[in-house]
Amino acid sequence: MKNILSFTSKHPKAQAHAYSAICAEQESIGYYALPEQDISPILEYSKSISDDIESIIVIGIGGSSLGAKAIYNFIKPVKSLKRKLYFLETTDPIEISDLLSNIELKKTHFLVISKSGTTVETFALYKYIYSLQSDPSAFTFITDPGSPLEKYAKEINASVLHLPDNVGGRFSVLSSVGLLPLALCGIDIQALLDGAKHIKQSFFNDGYIKETLLKKAVFYAKNHARYNINCIFAYSESLKYFCEWYVQLWGESLGKKQRHSAFHVGLTPIGLIGPKDQHSFLQLLADGIRNKSVTFIKIENIKDGICVPDITLPHLEALDSLNNLPFADLINMQCDSVIESLDAEGNIPLDTISLSRVSEDTIGGLIYYYELLTSLVGELMDVNTYDQPGVEAGKIILKEKLSK
Amino acid sequence: MKNILSFTSKHPKAQAHAYSAICAEQESIGYYALPEQDISPILEYSKSISDDIESIIVIGIGGSSLGAKAIYNFIKPVKSLKRKLYFLETTDPIEISDLLSNIELKKTHFLVISKSGTTVETFALYKYIYSLQSDPSAFTFITDPGSPLEKYAKEINASVLHLPDNVGGRFSVLSSVGLLPLALCGIDIQALLDGAKHIKQSFFNDGYIKETLLKKAVFYAKNHARYNINCIFAYSESLKYFCEWYVQLWGESLGKKQRHSAFHVGLTPIGLIGPKDQHSFLQLLADGIRNKSVTFIKIENIKDGICVPDITLPHLEALDSLNNLPFADLINMQCDSVIESLDAEGNIPLDTISLSRVSEDTIGGLIYYYELLTSLVGELMDVNTYDQPGVEAGKIILKEKLSK
Repeated sequence: MKNILSFTSKHPKAQAHAYSAICAEQESIGYYALPEQDISPILEYSKSISDDIESIIVIGIGGSSLGAKAIYNFIKPVKSLKRKLYFLETTDPIEISDLLSNIELKKTHFLVISKSGTTVETFALYKYIYSLQSDPSAFTFITDPGSPLEKYAKEINASVLHLPDNVGGRFSVLSSVGLLPLALCGIDIQALLDGAKHIKQSFFNDGYIKETLLKKAVFYAKNHARYNINCIFAYSESLKYFCEWYVQLWGESLGKKQRHSAFHVGLTPIGLIGPKDQHSFLQLLADGIRNKSVTFIKIENIKDGICVPDITLPHLEALDSLNNLPFADLINMQCDSVIESLDAEGNIPLDTISLSRVSEDTIGGLIYYYELLTSLVGELMDVNTYDQPGVEAGKIILKEKLSK
Repeated sequence: MKNILSFTSKHPKAQAHAYSAICAEQESIGYYALPEQDISPILEYSKSISDDIESIIVIGIGGSSLGAKAIYNFIKPVKSLKRKLYFLETTDPIEISDLLSNIELKKTHFLVISKSGTTVETFALYKYIYSLQSDPSAFTFITDPGSPLEKYAKEINASVLHLPDNVGGRFSVLSSVGLLPLALCGIDIQALLDGAKHIKQSFFNDGYIKETLLKKAVFYAKNHARYNINCIFAYSESLKYFCEWYVQLWGESLGKKQRHSAFHVGLTPIGLIGPKDQHSFLQLLADGIRNKSVTFIKIENIKDGICVPDITLPHLEALDSLNNLPFADLINMQCDSVIESLDAEGNIPLDTISLSRVSEDTIGGLIYYYELLTSLVGELMDVNTYDQPGVEAGKIILKEKLSK
């Protein structure tokens, strides 16, 4: 991964503060240690799932689905995978029926993922699936040790895997929550962790990523009032669900009341996909109010070799400059052109992340990069990066409505 | 459609100004008249496409694809359609190859849509497809009269349909651009226009929607600095692509330099889907910085009758309150609970749009509602709602790169 910033940020004290806070946090926050975990139990368990199983359905929502979905959809177009992966993550009856009409229940294994073991959506869906398929061996449960869900799973003799300690939902993709569904599809989860480990080591051992991450985090935090929207503009359709994962990570971690004030703070995440969103959101970036930073993500070596054919169309000869151009080059030229055009404006903070290729290690690294960035910015914004108290009020109201 | 606002806005002069400006604009801006168009030429033309054709692929980007995509994906889950509709709207080679591997070329008809007739993405893709399938009868071209693309199409004896005068890309969904692909799939395009006409008449003939739209537009414009982000929170997976259409319409229309100042202004659109995004973005809405308005969209009568089964799970008896509940009721209870929880905060401008059901007329009405709202806010923000000058710089840079 390369990461080039177009902006400067000279706040050595803030950088040093954030860095030491993150170093200390490793004691109490579980996600930092995930790259070094021993994955043999997950691989062993995934071998126990019959080869007759063709589809995996994750019943889970938010942190229980977004991470695996991001990685699966990044890798799927370039790798022939063992099984298909689906996500039941809505209570929309139209969508539920639509998804189930596309799979064969007998050839499907369900992963029921709920950290607390009491998520309303997950259990409404689980009950519905259970009424169609009540064989306990069709289910694996992933939850916190000792949760009511674990007790239930043991009662029906179904398998249970645990989340590691102190790993919140939106930071759990590199734990069993993300790794088991991905391993079941044949994704190389060790390479995923190796990519994350590479970024981790570079950050904690004074490598190249440390300076960039610290500068970027301090810039975002110091300018939170002016640039309160942080866009990712990814030039690859396969990063669409990565953007959704980022939106949860960034929005839910940083949108908070401050720890030591009554202030509401927060940075708003937006995910864009190029070149499509050049025809949608770019006008607002270029001419609209200057409240957005933009991080471009591009893939340097796209393997697919299709080219624009060498065809001249009468009356459309102006487009001949496209001829013989690999699409892989065209999409990156489009990205570079937009970067140059926005950079020329001068007051839009830009940076570019280049991934060398589409592979497990690059997406593993990208995920860990964003987790570190989120932790750093959270520390500098004086929020608790790891909780989500704002969603409780709605849950309580729903509970009241349901009990009526 | 019902639309209830939680905020008040007492600016009768601004309302009257915006209303009369929009009334006057009907002379020069083409989209206003689309609900009354005669669709028989489109229906006639779509009958000429062979019944052997199973797939329609739109080659088009931005305004040429987002509208049809929104409507197709809204209707598809509830109606058995005649053909499948796909969109080639990226230069990402991985995505192009992936899409083409799923269709049979001989049973596919291509709609090449480009207003200007010179869109880089569209022609790179068209050339590629043409190298695989060079039969002119496999293509229909939709473009402005007299464009180079029309001349080309005539040269190869392919069919051409025109865009109506003065209809910009992002306001073109109810023209041939959206109507032809939808008609080819068996979507009732007359019902779509009737839904739009209903909203149009209600607005221009002092109906119920006039007051709401004017209040909302004036509130958004007057508070553009404070509430600079406008979220749609739609409680239906099938509105996912409607949200993408909204993002283009809102962002590209309103993100501008003002007509009579040097100011950059703009309102930032965000599309959210419930309940999924309760587990992603809601925390930021609830506890984060107060710079967002939220419009909830719910569907009152979802036909699909699946229920949470009456099953008690040992150790999870607390979830029995879900039993026997239709999912259609659960999703709307979740929406209401989130509305109540945010409304209790007091300083988040909320409103709710209720659609009576999933059908062509409701989505047609919703689209026209948002087009009117965009025109009103654009007028009040002193921008040219209908151009997109900010995207030109990137196009020029790309052209230079390509010519090297």
